[in-house]
Amino acid sequence: MTSLLLRSAPLGARAVRAATHQPQLFRSAYATLSAASPYFNNEPSKPSVTTPIPGPVSKKAIDELNDVFDTRSLNMICDYNKSVGNYLVDLDGNMLLDVYAQIASIPVGYNNPHLHATVSSPESINFIVNRPALGNFPPGNWASILKSGILAVAPKGLNQVFTGMAGSDAIETSYKAAFMYRRRIERGEGVEFTAQEIESAMKNQSPGSPDLAIMSFKKAFHGRLFGSLSTTRSKPIHKLDIPAFDWPQASFPVLKYPLEDNVQANMEEEGRCLAEVEDIIISWHCPIAAVVIEPIQSEGGDNHASPIFFKALREITKRHGVLFIIDEVQTGVGATGKFWAHDHWELDSPPDMVTFSKKAQTAGYYFGNPLLRPNLPYRQFNTWMGDPMRAILFRGIIEEIQRLDLVKNTAETGAYLYSSLKDLASKYPGKIQNLRGKDRGTFIAWDTPDRDLFLKKMKTVGINIGGSGESAVRLRPMLVFQKHHANILLERIEQALKG
Amino acid sequence: MTSLLLRSAPLGARAVRAATHQPQLFRSAYATLSAASPYFNNEPSKPSVTTPIPGPVSKKAIDELNDVFDTRSLNMICDYNKSVGNYLVDLDGNMLLDVYAQIASIPVGYNNPHLHATVSSPESINFIVNRPALGNFPPGNWASILKSGILAVAPKGLNQVFTGMAGSDAIETSYKAAFMYRRRIERGEGVEFTAQEIESAMKNQSPGSPDLAIMSFKKAFHGRLFGSLSTTRSKPIHKLDIPAFDWPQASFPVLKYPLEDNVQANMEEEGRCLAEVEDIIISWHCPIAAVVIEPIQSEGGDNHASPIFFKALREITKRHGVLFIIDEVQTGVGATGKFWAHDHWELDSPPDMVTFSKKAQTAGYYFGNPLLRPNLPYRQFNTWMGDPMRAILFRGIIEEIQRLDLVKNTAETGAYLYSSLKDLASKYPGKIQNLRGKDRGTFIAWDTPDRDLFLKKMKTVGINIGGSGESAVRLRPMLVFQKHHANILLERIEQALKG
Repeated sequence: MTSLLLRSAPLGARAVRAATHQPQLFRSAYATLSAASPYFNNEPSKPSVTTPIPGPVSKKAIDELNDVFDTRSLNMICDYNKSVGNYLVDLDGNMLLDVYAQIASIPVGYNNPHLHATVSSPESINFIVNRPALGNFPPGNWASILKSGILAVAPKGLNQVFTGMAGSDAIETSYKAAFMYRRRIERGEGVEFTAQEIESAMKNQSPGSPDLAIMSFKKAFHGRLFGSLSTTRSKPIHKLDIPAFDWPQASFPVLKYPLEDNVQANMEEEGRCLAEVEDIIISWHCPIAAVVIEPIQSEGGDNHASPIFFKALREITKRHGVLFIIDEVQTGVGATGKFWAHDHWELDSPPDMVTFSKKAQTAGYYFGNPLLRPNLPYRQFNTWMGDPMRAILFRGIIEEIQRLDLVKNTAETGAYLYSSLKDLASKYPGKIQNLRGKDRGTFIAWDTPDRDLFLKKMKTVGINIGGSGESAVRLRPMLVFQKHHANILLERIEQALKG
Repeated sequence: MTSLLLRSAPLGARAVRAATHQPQLFRSAYATLSAASPYFNNEPSKPSVTTPIPGPVSKKAIDELNDVFDTRSLNMICDYNKSVGNYLVDLDGNMLLDVYAQIASIPVGYNNPHLHATVSSPESINFIVNRPALGNFPPGNWASILKSGILAVAPKGLNQVFTGMAGSDAIETSYKAAFMYRRRIERGEGVEFTAQEIESAMKNQSPGSPDLAIMSFKKAFHGRLFGSLSTTRSKPIHKLDIPAFDWPQASFPVLKYPLEDNVQANMEEEGRCLAEVEDIIISWHCPIAAVVIEPIQSEGGDNHASPIFFKALREITKRHGVLFIIDEVQTGVGATGKFWAHDHWELDSPPDMVTFSKKAQTAGYYFGNPLLRPNLPYRQFNTWMGDPMRAILFRGIIEEIQRLDLVKNTAETGAYLYSSLKDLASKYPGKIQNLRGKDRGTFIAWDTPDRDLFLKKMKTVGINIGGSGESAVRLRPMLVFQKHHANILLERIEQALKG
């Protein structure tokens, strides 16, 4: 690994403390530092691009990789030893400011020393070497790992977590929990399965495999396995040729920007969508067990709706006995300037489940409540049942977020970035359209003509940046993205727009 | 970690070599060692049970865990620092010989020093701290990791691997590959999607979301997500209340034991099942894109069929243009005395895909061929696309298997164990019935009355052992299970049968 210095303490002392796990000590030692000083002292002062991307070294490596791995979706081939903080380095030594962060996944910077110490600890290494089947043979400290990590950041009103492996997995197990819950309510508490249910389930037929549905929204993305893909409605390329369940989609509000000039029209649009939701719940050919929704539709184009919309949706689902699942796979863990994006809504009653994954790093989780535990064991079960090393890593991520107050940083940097982009949009009105993400941290996006060309051009000026939907540029920087990074980003966007 | 000594070299030298990755050096230095000497010098000489299981310390920890994690499927709560080789230690210090191995997952022993060195290496740690989205931003050495690891053990005839996260994931992505391939053939090479396909896919309707099926077998287990669960037919509790696709199941042969006394009846039974397969392919309401089968049905009760059956099944699928997927999630990586269980069949033409997971340790893979790459990028894609650290770990597992010649060890230990169990079955004919797994390494099982009681009794005599199906005891020791362990196991089985 590159030798790294995070501000203040030397790595040695940090590593020792992290290995012995004393987050309190961490926090008290660092909490008073000003947010304006850089988190990473060893980041470059600006991007550096010395070859076309991909350059000659990268091209050769991509050719070699293509023999064994589909490289048609490859964006950059990277050197993760040299990458640091907000900077991603490719095989030709180009050093880009990264506001895409492995599709919104890297939480606290490349080669973060605290995470390095966390995963190098004997506790973490032991769980890789001795992989427990957690449902059957959990380690003695599993409760403590969950309580001091994942559950310490549980959304308000939820105190249980199901530990899985990835976003799709988290989503699909939450759907399974919803179906089992629905049938339990319909059947009546304590009522046994009938012989007909048992027999028909083995044939994939009703009533054992019941005709029940999950409702999602147009443009939603919830994953790519068979159940999750049946609720994904982002792009045809994600869905073509794959059998799907006959489940319904409601319209997601298509808001007009700027919001302040379109208040009435947007309110009507949200009302129309809510009416559609209620219509579908009442009239669909089978019962709807749950409604699933992203706080901000991410893959589908960074589509927003108002807190009023989400509060009304919660109210409708509650009234009809339909579970309400919030998919925070991409929005969760600080990026919107609150720990959970749905914290912005101030719901009167909590959601039934919240899924998340990306910034939890190769893991997938859903939060729930005790009612969602199935009536019998082995109904929500698999060999791994999550990954203890990844749970320890996520605890380390939470510690780093708390130590550096990174949710606040993201809220503040985001506010600065949004208002600067608004100014830029006034200067280049045709090129930055429908700017969105006000008061949503750095979770900012806009539409631009020739989007894919713009993304490519941004690489030449040293920025790794992503798109979503048909025409959106989406910002997904890490939580360690600061004002001085924002200034570089703004300068390079203007350079690309001019060029 | 417990201080460990594997036979021969000190850990320091080993760690250095592992970190610099020189498997050839490893092999030449150790290959001449006799198989009879123990692989782990620091294993106990025998099990030790000093409290009931769970004992007082375990009980307290289980109570605490139950607040946040469903403990109704808990078997033992473990201390993975003290576990070593074939021995699993619980929180009360009970030390059990483990022939269940985290549901058939631990490959080369608890706290294996080579795996410890492998995952502690800078290369491995770097990939945990800097989690790449592999499809977009692979590291420069991804081709080399795949080629020197996973692909070095690719089944005959397959040279591509899709890297996933878990068994269900591997299975579901292999089904997606089968569906995309099927439609590509039906549509004709190079033919574009129609407007109707694109529009209907977004509504989960045909022809975009086509009516196509995967055929599986009665008692099969292929996972628990929505697509994989639709092919799982092991037990009602796995399937009840979960919507499923209307996909078919064929009968899996129900063989009579001992095989040598039932040759004619078993041949007829296999013929009946094959005829059923062909009938379903011809008459099912929609086309069958693939047939999926386990070489030995594991969760479903350790059900075997003959190589002749599997060769005929391959021939039938080929004749009808149906893909043939072998699910080696549990059988793969040495446990049957060959690296892949289907190597025992000597197929005339290779399968189309082979899935595996467990001994690959928190990862899921399917092997395939270049024809199974979809026609366009982003069709078989997700954020993680596997896990580079886990790929490095699996390479370390392969190195350890080769260094100690563990597939050969498992074949030899298995043969000894099987013949000894046969003798025991003659002595206790009512208690060891339908012994199966001859010439299948240590992948051995038998039926017993009061199976669950027997499994519990085995704990009291120091053996951690599992069941499958309704009445089977299944052996799933690690690849480092040796003759001296087998002798302890045999002695304790007899003790439990007598008691």
